[in-house]
Amino acid sequence: MSRHMKSRRRALQSPPEALVYIGSNPNANEMIDVFSYNKGHFEETQVHADQFPSGPLPRGHVTWVNVDGVSDVNLIRRIGAQFGFHELVLEDIVHTGQRPKMEDHGSYIYCVLRMLYNKDHDDHIESEQVSLLLTQDAVFTFQEAQGDVFDPVRKRLREKNSHLAEHGADYLAYSLIDMIIDNYYLILEDIGDRIERLEEEVSGRPDPETLKNIHGVRSDLIHIRKAIWPLRELTSDLQRCDSPLIRRETSRFIGNLRDHMLQIMDAVETFRDTTGGLLDIYISQISFHMNEIMKTLTITATIFIPLTFVAGVYGMNFRHMPELDWRWGYAMSWAIMSGIALFMLLLFRRKKWI
Amino acid sequence: MSRHMKSRRRALQSPPEALVYIGSNPNANEMIDVFSYNKGHFEETQVHADQFPSGPLPRGHVTWVNVDGVSDVNLIRRIGAQFGFHELVLEDIVHTGQRPKMEDHGSYIYCVLRMLYNKDHDDHIESEQVSLLLTQDAVFTFQEAQGDVFDPVRKRLREKNSHLAEHGADYLAYSLIDMIIDNYYLILEDIGDRIERLEEEVSGRPDPETLKNIHGVRSDLIHIRKAIWPLRELTSDLQRCDSPLIRRETSRFIGNLRDHMLQIMDAVETFRDTTGGLLDIYISQISFHMNEIMKTLTITATIFIPLTFVAGVYGMNFRHMPELDWRWGYAMSWAIMSGIALFMLLLFRRKKWI
Amino acid sequence: MSRHMKSRRRALQSPPEALVYIGSNPNANEMIDVFSYNKGHFEETQVHADQFPSGPLPRGHVTWVNVDGVSDVNLIRRIGAQFGFHELVLEDIVHTGQRPKMEDHGSYIYCVLRMLYNKDHDDHIESEQVSLLLTQDAVFTFQEAQGDVFDPVRKRLREKNSHLAEHGADYLAYSLIDMIIDNYYLILEDIGDRIERLEEEVSGRPDPETLKNIHGVRSDLIHIRKAIWPLRELTSDLQRCDSPLIRRETSRFIGNLRDHMLQIMDAVETFRDTTGGLLDIYISQISFHMNEIMKTLTITATIFIPLTFVAGVYGMNFRHMPELDWRWGYAMSWAIMSGIALFMLLLFRRKKWI
Amino acid sequence: MSRHMKSRRRALQSPPEALVYIGSNPNANEMIDVFSYNKGHFEETQVHADQFPSGPLPRGHVTWVNVDGVSDVNLIRRIGAQFGFHELVLEDIVHTGQRPKMEDHGSYIYCVLRMLYNKDHDDHIESEQVSLLLTQDAVFTFQEAQGDVFDPVRKRLREKNSHLAEHGADYLAYSLIDMIIDNYYLILEDIGDRIERLEEEVSGRPDPETLKNIHGVRSDLIHIRKAIWPLRELTSDLQRCDSPLIRRETSRFIGNLRDHMLQIMDAVETFRDTTGGLLDIYISQISFHMNEIMKTLTITATIFIPLTFVAGVYGMNFRHMPELDWRWGYAMSWAIMSGIALFMLLLFRRKKWI
Amino acid sequence: MSRHMKSRRRALQSPPEALVYIGSNPNANEMIDVFSYNKGHFEETQVHADQFPSGPLPRGHVTWVNVDGVSDVNLIRRIGAQFGFHELVLEDIVHTGQRPKMEDHGSYIYCVLRMLYNKDHDDHIESEQVSLLLTQDAVFTFQEAQGDVFDPVRKRLREKNSHLAEHGADYLAYSLIDMIIDNYYLILEDIGDRIERLEEEVSGRPDPETLKNIHGVRSDLIHIRKAIWPLRELTSDLQRCDSPLIRRETSRFIGNLRDHMLQIMDAVETFRDTTGGLLDIYISQISFHMNEIMKTLTITATIFIPLTFVAGVYGMNFRHMPELDWRWGYAMSWAIMSGIALFMLLLFRRKKWI
Repeated sequence: MSRHMKSRRRALQSPPEALVYIGSNPNANEMIDVFSYNKGHFEETQVHADQFPSGPLPRGHVTWVNVDGVSDVNLIRRIGAQFGFHELVLEDIVHTGQRPKMEDHGSYIYCVLRMLYNKDHDDHIESEQVSLLLTQDAVFTFQEAQGDVFDPVRKRLREKNSHLAEHGADYLAYSLIDMIIDNYYLILEDIGDRIERLEEEVSGRPDPETLKNIHGVRSDLIHIRKAIWPLRELTSDLQRCDSPLIRRETSRFIGNLRDHMLQIMDAVETFRDTTGGLLDIYISQISFHMNEIMKTLTITATIFIPLTFVAGVYGMNFRHMPELDWRWGYAMSWAIMSGIALFMLLLFRRKKWI
Repeated sequence: MSRHMKSRRRALQSPPEALVYIGSNPNANEMIDVFSYNKGHFEETQVHADQFPSGPLPRGHVTWVNVDGVSDVNLIRRIGAQFGFHELVLEDIVHTGQRPKMEDHGSYIYCVLRMLYNKDHDDHIESEQVSLLLTQDAVFTFQEAQGDVFDPVRKRLREKNSHLAEHGADYLAYSLIDMIIDNYYLILEDIGDRIERLEEEVSGRPDPETLKNIHGVRSDLIHIRKAIWPLRELTSDLQRCDSPLIRRETSRFIGNLRDHMLQIMDAVETFRDTTGGLLDIYISQISFHMNEIMKTLTITATIFIPLTFVAGVYGMNFRHMPELDWRWGYAMSWAIMSGIALFMLLLFRRKKWI
Repeated sequence: MSRHMKSRRRALQSPPEALVYIGSNPNANEMIDVFSYNKGHFEETQVHADQFPSGPLPRGHVTWVNVDGVSDVNLIRRIGAQFGFHELVLEDIVHTGQRPKMEDHGSYIYCVLRMLYNKDHDDHIESEQVSLLLTQDAVFTFQEAQGDVFDPVRKRLREKNSHLAEHGADYLAYSLIDMIIDNYYLILEDIGDRIERLEEEVSGRPDPETLKNIHGVRSDLIHIRKAIWPLRELTSDLQRCDSPLIRRETSRFIGNLRDHMLQIMDAVETFRDTTGGLLDIYISQISFHMNEIMKTLTITATIFIPLTFVAGVYGMNFRHMPELDWRWGYAMSWAIMSGIALFMLLLFRRKKWI
Repeated sequence: MSRHMKSRRRALQSPPEALVYIGSNPNANEMIDVFSYNKGHFEETQVHADQFPSGPLPRGHVTWVNVDGVSDVNLIRRIGAQFGFHELVLEDIVHTGQRPKMEDHGSYIYCVLRMLYNKDHDDHIESEQVSLLLTQDAVFTFQEAQGDVFDPVRKRLREKNSHLAEHGADYLAYSLIDMIIDNYYLILEDIGDRIERLEEEVSGRPDPETLKNIHGVRSDLIHIRKAIWPLRELTSDLQRCDSPLIRRETSRFIGNLRDHMLQIMDAVETFRDTTGGLLDIYISQISFHMNEIMKTLTITATIFIPLTFVAGVYGMNFRHMPELDWRWGYAMSWAIMSGIALFMLLLFRRKKWI
Repeated sequence: MSRHMKSRRRALQSPPEALVYIGSNPNANEMIDVFSYNKGHFEETQVHADQFPSGPLPRGHVTWVNVDGVSDVNLIRRIGAQFGFHELVLEDIVHTGQRPKMEDHGSYIYCVLRMLYNKDHDDHIESEQVSLLLTQDAVFTFQEAQGDVFDPVRKRLREKNSHLAEHGADYLAYSLIDMIIDNYYLILEDIGDRIERLEEEVSGRPDPETLKNIHGVRSDLIHIRKAIWPLRELTSDLQRCDSPLIRRETSRFIGNLRDHMLQIMDAVETFRDTTGGLLDIYISQISFHMNEIMKTLTITATIFIPLTFVAGVYGMNFRHMPELDWRWGYAMSWAIMSGIALFMLLLFRRKKWI
């Protein structure tokens, strides 16, 4: 968050008409992936940013243009000019940190999505903004960095006769969004594993590190919720919009995404409740250990302090202490002390402290 | 949850057109139960999955086809093709872990429900997805595993002249949904018993195990709520939908289900409040015991530490200690010590600690 | 709750067409109270359940039929058949534990209400389901047990020239509902008294019993809220419904009930906030006592442990201890010890512990 | 609250047609203030309740009739009959404890408002019900007790050529409501002062009294919220209602009241958040003091207990203890003891306890 | 807040027709900044309040009149009269402490906004009311004090050929609102830094000061939320209003502001969750330290108290104590004491306390 804001501070210095990148991946990739296919044909090319063809896209094909890295503002501006994307759309592409949303601009539809990562299957979850533009026969995707969740789509495109090739650009867009959402399940699976580990830790001997991990999970859940919650609106907007860009049959598939999102939200809520319970158990466990410690102290002290007193009494140096001269005085003192100790032990037993 | 997600990870590898089972009951049952009846006639058969008749269902009868286990993807696909169920419906049937919902597909209505189990009347609650398809004169139910809550319906069907036989497939569907919802009451009854046991435990000498049980109940309540909450929408959709598949008279019975669900939700909320109170009492009980322990320590230590000091004083070896030579020195020391002890006891009595 | 559920378990065994009583008052009363009146006439009879007249009600009178106890399923069924009440209505009458609701069945209106009791003005609040059926010129009320809050209405009916006699059955129904709602004020008054007692208790020396009482009040407030909340919908439905059974003038009175309910809800919310504050004070009070105890221990121990050490030093038996032979050695030891004690006392005074 | 309920219990004994006062100011004032004015004319009279003129109000003037005390039920009934107020309105006037609301009765508009008091600028906030009736050319106000917040309006009326005199009765009603709402700001100012005092108290040495004061502020805030929240509806109803009693120009001023109320609600919410923070700080402060106390005990005990042990060892009376006879035995014992003490002090220093 | 209220108390004394300043910046600036520009022309003048031209604004230019300080009520009234602003608008301008809102008055649009400051990048956030009036070809801004966030706009105006000069007054108004909202990002950045510092502090050795800082952040977040939340309504009102004052193209830019606000709200919510977590960690850290302290005390006391007892026993002066005369009595006593100490240490090791 704060990294975004720092770049934003710099952006405030520039005139608003200037497109300024706001984000944390300043080194743009120079290569653009272009996939072009129809029912019988498939072509995959990688062009240098400078050599991106300036004319219109070939007719009769579905084209997918994927740009990794959006800090090359000139490239974004050039593509924007070439395909007629609105200046505010271009601004949203380079100002990463947008909320997921969908805008129907007539000749194209603009979607912002968030892709989640958990590279080490344990660390903090990181997110990346994906901008998706759907035109009549093309899909443009702009990602913040290299590496994404679209490989299954690529694999299917490369397969001959895939289901995908029979549909239009709208189905490709749906497939890409579906990939992003499906990936949330995997993120949630990792979180589920972390929670299970925390459950064991917290029942054992938790320390402040445990608490930090619990809050780490909570903040990751908030992260996911922030990425998913606006998707509800996005998909229902996509489904309901009267845009000719989205065919009726694709619309049905988009509707199906909503069920997925509700499932994910349910899981997120359940996980939140579980971590809330972990917090309670953590605090209770700390108190329980405290009680254990205090019990030990109390039992030892309560038994030995009176005994020490008795010993102290017969350590006094008064000239006239009849007991000291008794034949069985010493034995008697032991009898008294044993009696006290026994009494205390019975008392603690009755209170169920030992 | 995580088991579902793990199978989902595997499913992501396959093309989306391939139907892949996502769930935790991979061993499908090979047998299908078929009930066929009308006012005067009743027939119950059990066919092998391979021998399921491929033609249309007999006319003039209500047919109930019950499939236990949905991991046999081929069977699901074959039935889907035979009766014209949509590919997304088939996917939802085998992707167990759906939220309860209702979809009107014109020639048939598709419902997803969750059946809850509490096999040992004490353990965690488990849930199973039930897919219900209502056509003109048939009901198809797909369950994840064998064993269900439909036996009262089966018994009634087998009885001659039952009320059920006089109604159509829609009433059968209503009866099955009613069975699932009625079963929630029994689940809640078990939870009520567990809460009563916890109330006793928590007033006694609670330990971290108690806390875990309280959270176990809370998470079961969340489970139930997640299963029931979407049913509200489901039933109101069912009641309102203009589908000719649902007769006016049946619609009224469906409306009645909504009252049941509100009652269950009320009970779930009340139970949640009660367990919240149990948590408070648990924590307070722990603090109270701590106070008890500290009081014991304080009283013992505060009485005997000054006494030990007095004894220590007269244990000193100074040559010139006049008291040591007094005739009643020893008696005097006892008088001082008793005085201190008495004073302390009175002080504690006034503070109401003893 | 659980008692209801246990009877429900039994009910599940029977066919759904069979009317089965679900509730906790199995012994039905055999007597039915019938009030019949118009402007000039008043008649009050009590008939045995078997002798309830089977023909239509007399014309030109308002008749109020009050049945105490709904476990006599046959009686309910007979009355239902006689006056044409729907089978689901009869089921709701005997399945006590319904949420308050209102249903317009055309020729009659069916309301479910909850009557609250606090027999000992201190104990748990208990509730009872009251089913009210309003027809053209009659009101039927079905209660779970004998004893109700309708006596003021009965008294007014028996008075000659009462306001009530000038209105129709709808005004009688309104009056009965008004009685039930007015009774909530009295219940709240008792709760207010209990809260005042708890406020005193909690400022004094609270124990876990206090906590239990606080939670008892909270759960009673939940109980009341559950009984009242659905009434909002009920009264607005009653007021808005176009049923010819409810005259315009009565409708206005019903509208007035809504203000009463909002007032009660306000009071319930205020009481909830107050008990929440009591919980905070309770926990803080426990901590405060703990601090008191620890302070006492710390002060005593911190003063006397160093003194005992000094005494111990001069109790050592070294042959060469010059102080022991000094003339004022003993006095000096007292000086040292007094000095330490004074220093400690000043320290504690500065820390404001004493 | 409970006082209202107690009178309500008495009211339940009487027939509903009887108007019974429910409130806590049973001694009605016998005098009625009547202000009558138009652009050129102003007249202020005070009449005895018995001598209130029974005819219609003079035409061409705006008349404000202010009644302090509503327990004189006969007076209320007489005024009600004279000006045609509905029986339910009269009931609401004498049943103090109503929620703020607005009712359009055609020929007059009835508003209930709550006036807040904080007589000692520190004590509990008290509230009083004000009923306001707006007719064509008159405003009636009924207050529970003498003393109100309307003095600025009175002052302005007495001034010649005041703005008020140029407007009709609706503007007078607006001005009175405005006075009541403006008074909430002053109440909030007092609460702000109390919170500031509590902030200082809680940072110092809080005791349970502090906690009680925090909860006192919280419950006052709830009180205010309950008085203001329904006003939102009231003013928007007033503004939107098509009543000819309210002129377009006045309507705009009424709209302005809504902003005031939102501001007050914002302040109430901020204050609630602040007191919530105070609670956290209070509890943390208590724990912090506990830690201080325990640290003192631990440091003293941990240093002196080992020393006392050493002294105890050399106080033993064994015949054969070589150290006792050493020349530097006593010095050695001091060396050992100093060493232990030093070691402990360094340890505590490293743990940053001292 | 309370300063506003104090001035409000004074304002209540005055007649409502009198415009009275309510706020905390009583010393008005006497100078007014006037910017006048169109595509080819730019003029910036600073006039004394007295010399503000009384005629209409020059045609064909966009004029921005900026007034710093609103306590000079006469100036506000004069400008109001000159440009026909409504008396309630003028009141809102001088009654600082308004909620952000937007009002369409036909010939002009009135907006209230809140500008946030954090002068020392660490201190409390302060806010200032900005009133913005948009007419056909002019924008009036009224600020409480000198110093604002509009400098980038001023800089751009002074630049020749800026984008701004090509648009009308509505775009200028948009730019000013945009500046205010953009500034919230910087405020949030500061808060993010403070939270990071608190995270480190709380993991170390937190004290009550830390807690106060956490609550300081929380209350600043509430402050921001109160300033932003009403902006949602404001911008959607601005966008939707049919006022000819706002051109279609500008409307689109205004729509973009909404996304910014949702982002800010998201950040505020995330920060709130984070500080909530900090509170939990703080409390847990305090408990953890307590446990450390108690452990130290318990270990020391539990080891040495029994040893001291043993030493005490052999310090008794009984005449007949056989051990005292043994050859190895002293060695034996050391053996016993070492054995006890060792046993205790092993016990603590097993309990994992050391």
